[in-house]
Amino acid sequence: MTLNETTTGTIAIAPTPFDGDGRVDQRSIDSMCDFYGKIGCTGITVLGIMGEAPKLDAQEAIDVAKQVIRRAQGLDIIVGVSAPGFAAMRTLARHAMDAGAAGVMIAPLPSLRTDEQILTYFRQAVEAVGPDIPWVLQDYPLTLSVQMTASTIRAIVQEHASCVMLKHEDWPGLEKISALRRYQREGSLRPLSILTGNGALFLDFEMERGADGAMTGYAFPEMLIDVVNLSRAGRRDDAHDLFDAHLPLIRYEQQQGVGLAVRKYVMAKRGIIAFDAQRKPASSLSATGRAEVDYLLTRLSRHDRRAMALDGIAGAAS
Amino acid sequence: MTLNETTTGTIAIAPTPFDGDGRVDQRSIDSMCDFYGKIGCTGITVLGIMGEAPKLDAQEAIDVAKQVIRRAQGLDIIVGVSAPGFAAMRTLARHAMDAGAAGVMIAPLPSLRTDEQILTYFRQAVEAVGPDIPWVLQDYPLTLSVQMTASTIRAIVQEHASCVMLKHEDWPGLEKISALRRYQREGSLRPLSILTGNGALFLDFEMERGADGAMTGYAFPEMLIDVVNLSRAGRRDDAHDLFDAHLPLIRYEQQQGVGLAVRKYVMAKRGIIAFDAQRKPASSLSATGRAEVDYLLTRLSRHDRRAMALDGIAGAAS
Amino acid sequence: MTLNETTTGTIAIAPTPFDGDGRVDQRSIDSMCDFYGKIGCTGITVLGIMGEAPKLDAQEAIDVAKQVIRRAQGLDIIVGVSAPGFAAMRTLARHAMDAGAAGVMIAPLPSLRTDEQILTYFRQAVEAVGPDIPWVLQDYPLTLSVQMTASTIRAIVQEHASCVMLKHEDWPGLEKISALRRYQREGSLRPLSILTGNGALFLDFEMERGADGAMTGYAFPEMLIDVVNLSRAGRRDDAHDLFDAHLPLIRYEQQQGVGLAVRKYVMAKRGIIAFDAQRKPASSLSATGRAEVDYLLTRLSRHDRRAMALDGIAGAAS
Amino acid sequence: MTLNETTTGTIAIAPTPFDGDGRVDQRSIDSMCDFYGKIGCTGITVLGIMGEAPKLDAQEAIDVAKQVIRRAQGLDIIVGVSAPGFAAMRTLARHAMDAGAAGVMIAPLPSLRTDEQILTYFRQAVEAVGPDIPWVLQDYPLTLSVQMTASTIRAIVQEHASCVMLKHEDWPGLEKISALRRYQREGSLRPLSILTGNGALFLDFEMERGADGAMTGYAFPEMLIDVVNLSRAGRRDDAHDLFDAHLPLIRYEQQQGVGLAVRKYVMAKRGIIAFDAQRKPASSLSATGRAEVDYLLTRLSRHDRRAMALDGIAGAAS
Repeated sequence: MTLNETTTGTIAIAPTPFDGDGRVDQRSIDSMCDFYGKIGCTGITVLGIMGEAPKLDAQEAIDVAKQVIRRAQGLDIIVGVSAPGFAAMRTLARHAMDAGAAGVMIAPLPSLRTDEQILTYFRQAVEAVGPDIPWVLQDYPLTLSVQMTASTIRAIVQEHASCVMLKHEDWPGLEKISALRRYQREGSLRPLSILTGNGALFLDFEMERGADGAMTGYAFPEMLIDVVNLSRAGRRDDAHDLFDAHLPLIRYEQQQGVGLAVRKYVMAKRGIIAFDAQRKPASSLSATGRAEVDYLLTRLSRHDRRAMALDGIAGAAS
Repeated sequence: MTLNETTTGTIAIAPTPFDGDGRVDQRSIDSMCDFYGKIGCTGITVLGIMGEAPKLDAQEAIDVAKQVIRRAQGLDIIVGVSAPGFAAMRTLARHAMDAGAAGVMIAPLPSLRTDEQILTYFRQAVEAVGPDIPWVLQDYPLTLSVQMTASTIRAIVQEHASCVMLKHEDWPGLEKISALRRYQREGSLRPLSILTGNGALFLDFEMERGADGAMTGYAFPEMLIDVVNLSRAGRRDDAHDLFDAHLPLIRYEQQQGVGLAVRKYVMAKRGIIAFDAQRKPASSLSATGRAEVDYLLTRLSRHDRRAMALDGIAGAAS
Repeated sequence: MTLNETTTGTIAIAPTPFDGDGRVDQRSIDSMCDFYGKIGCTGITVLGIMGEAPKLDAQEAIDVAKQVIRRAQGLDIIVGVSAPGFAAMRTLARHAMDAGAAGVMIAPLPSLRTDEQILTYFRQAVEAVGPDIPWVLQDYPLTLSVQMTASTIRAIVQEHASCVMLKHEDWPGLEKISALRRYQREGSLRPLSILTGNGALFLDFEMERGADGAMTGYAFPEMLIDVVNLSRAGRRDDAHDLFDAHLPLIRYEQQQGVGLAVRKYVMAKRGIIAFDAQRKPASSLSATGRAEVDYLLTRLSRHDRRAMALDGIAGAAS
Repeated sequence: MTLNETTTGTIAIAPTPFDGDGRVDQRSIDSMCDFYGKIGCTGITVLGIMGEAPKLDAQEAIDVAKQVIRRAQGLDIIVGVSAPGFAAMRTLARHAMDAGAAGVMIAPLPSLRTDEQILTYFRQAVEAVGPDIPWVLQDYPLTLSVQMTASTIRAIVQEHASCVMLKHEDWPGLEKISALRRYQREGSLRPLSILTGNGALFLDFEMERGADGAMTGYAFPEMLIDVVNLSRAGRRDDAHDLFDAHLPLIRYEQQQGVGLAVRKYVMAKRGIIAFDAQRKPASSLSATGRAEVDYLLTRLSRHDRRAMALDGIAGAAS
């Protein structure tokens, strides 16, 4: 099973579970994979920015990728292989594909500025991992400080047949989706799957602009799945109603740095992972922050019953 | 009437209205001031980042500030005087205060990095404008790329008696409010008004953390006023209910660059200003973008009747 | 006399002289202009980055430009008009041209990233100042953080007939000069004057790569003139011998922030201006720093007699 | 043999030699180590920024470090362990120390801004590698964009007994050396070895300000050794005479990106390594660039006979 340009649906960006001592929590990797499969995710992306990938050493990264691939049979597993150098990128990519990954994800180096530099970088990256590996182009200027216009993305996609998907998280990015879809109608861009990130903050309209689905780490991926499906089914108001109910929490997760702490806290509360721990350097939620999230969950549960079950297991995360 | 550390409520960040040819639209300045006064704003901030201040030449900036001060009698007018150099800052600040401004707002230069550089900068800024002018410290790392910790802000406030207010828009920033209020309880920070920005994206919790009010440019400042008042009255659920109803639009405004286009479009629709034009370099809303905002307004009107009246004047902005 | 694509020689980047109280020192503007004319400069650039332009308010900037234009009859005066907004840029540019400037210099806004953004910016800048004003494109990534490739520069020059000169100070930049000259040989770039900056640190080789001259603020512009002339006359070794003798001081000036303090100190020692003062925020030379410069001047005087005369007026700067 | 605060002399920053196919060139590692030992270096730093460290995968990095330690018996070997995460940092540091390294070098993460963030980062780094490993603090704002004031450096050094050396390469940085030495005279900073980088561009004065030696990658480390020794012997003019003779080449190496290509080209010409190849992404010298370096070497050989021998082996690098 390999990734291709027709992929749709929701691919969850997975955190890397750690225990309180900073060790990779393998048991939680399994329970998390089971959860994503059960609720209907198309796939899982591991070792992304949210996955605390740079905090793992080389062997740990390979081990995490392999475990997820082994456990989440039937799902498309994408492995983030962004690295400061091509040797490390290649090593991880080859291990991942050999183990059965569906593809890899590559972000540009933060130092890239000009279109020429960006195009050269991806040329060298594809040469490093090999032209046979399907890959996802990550466009995330807010964090990476690399700005790729729609026409630069088109140039990359047209040059590399193995680039089959865009993880879209430019901000603002709605017009970029429209521009890419327009290129395709005009015949200047080949088919390309577009899944959107940015913590789902604009998912409602991104779907209407032409996205194929979501790829982000919101702690209630069921909502992503539902909004994607409702939107694809043309049920606009229903999609927005569900989305709006979750928006206060989506928004709360959007706090840079704190976001991961919120997500792990909610996932631990939901029993998806055992601990809300991060490896150092770690962000954390204050007692007030946790109470705010709890309040948001309570409010959410009035609209979405899946947030209700949490009350029973609220103690698990503390 | 001068600004001081006890100021509470909602100070609207005002756009600078232009006509279709890029000229300052003086008639709209008047109607906008009247609107802010009528709905109950405590004050108005002009020539902020949202006010397209760098696009005005020196004389235009003075003229805009004077007109707002003259028209909005009874409101506290704060004039943004951030400038690449102290001579321009001083010139504008003295003109504004002579005309009756309540105070000025100063942001750090984007090139500042170390605590030492930041403290030195504000020392020189206060020397330039004069120690008698009450001023607002703007803390906006997302746009300015200057990071001030809570303890650096404390050092600035303690050093300058004329610094009476913080425009808080760090992101994430909830813990920063809590830290500053803790400093005050501990006795290491003198009284300080904290009004929050960031387009109100976190206003609900910012109030609960100890903010005194809002200072931002959301196109429905009535909501800011109501949430601030509800929160101060301890009506937590009511505050969140109203806030959540507006959140989809608040979130839509949050798109960097596009946000101002959204705000001017909504304000023109509401009849607050005559045109949604910006001076170049300008961002703009595509037809699809305008339709998305219209859809959000329609949805909002189910919860907040003030969004309903818009249908009647929808043509005004086109 | 207007600037055009055939300009060669040395255009001095002038500091703005201030007195000890931070006032513009008009007497020194005159003596400085006389000096540049006497030694054989082709022109003078005022209100550049080195000219502390952002520290002047709008009227002061116009006054400085006018005084230099009036005093330095027979020289090409270029006025830096870079500004955060186009209204201020236009106001200064029109005043300067009306007063007899040869052209203006425009740098990109530091926030620009993509080729598309850069091209749009200069399109709007030319529209703002008017297509009839000859202008110099400043390419200075180290300070401005905007990266323009050789092909982006070509696109700008080809689009705007009024862009007649490049102030080249990319670093490294030798290959960029070669690329632009190659474009011209291939017929894809029209004639363009290239004067080089970067404090002259690479002037020796820049001339050999095809530069037309120097535009920088080294405190011994006589050396710039001589190296440019020797290099154009094909006297390679002589050009390098003179250049190398000055290199220790050129290098010392290259310290970001401190550089201007060094230049004003040396210019004051030489009697070109009366004070080495800067307007705040100001960098300054420590006593040790001044002694180091004095030592470098003493060593330089063994090779270049023009550095010798300084001993007699050493007291002037202190 | 471990690094400590009394270390003086010249520690060469070593490149990582590759062959034309991008493989680590082990034979050249040996010849390079022999060269550094023969000319009198105090030590060697491997896997620094110049060492293309991010281009190696984890195992290759360990192998390179071990080979250098094994070969360069009698020299202090410092291993650069800067990494995006602490797990990778710890793994490399422990392997290096177990193999006999004298210490490690740690640079701050480029994203750090406030003093508080910087202090926290080094606290966590020391916790990760262990408090028993002597380490060098790298202060390189030009490339890393992290600004540490003299007092922040003092705070780090005072907090961590294992921080025994500063690799000083702030620019401008002369006053920073003076400030640190003043702290020591005043008793607020404990003994600390300061070796200077920045490609030696300011080595002449850095020694006079109180540096203990050089740690940089100039392709003629003999000059570094001699200038350090002359300066320490109080022979100021002789130190400057030698330094000035090399300055045109030092300056040429100072071109960001191109610098490493120049160094490898010269080292290959000198027979120190076999190839001037870099692993991708690689910078390279054009034919014109190589001819310019050859010309500089010819000129240098008139003052420093060690540059003369090159003519005989000039073919080796092509």
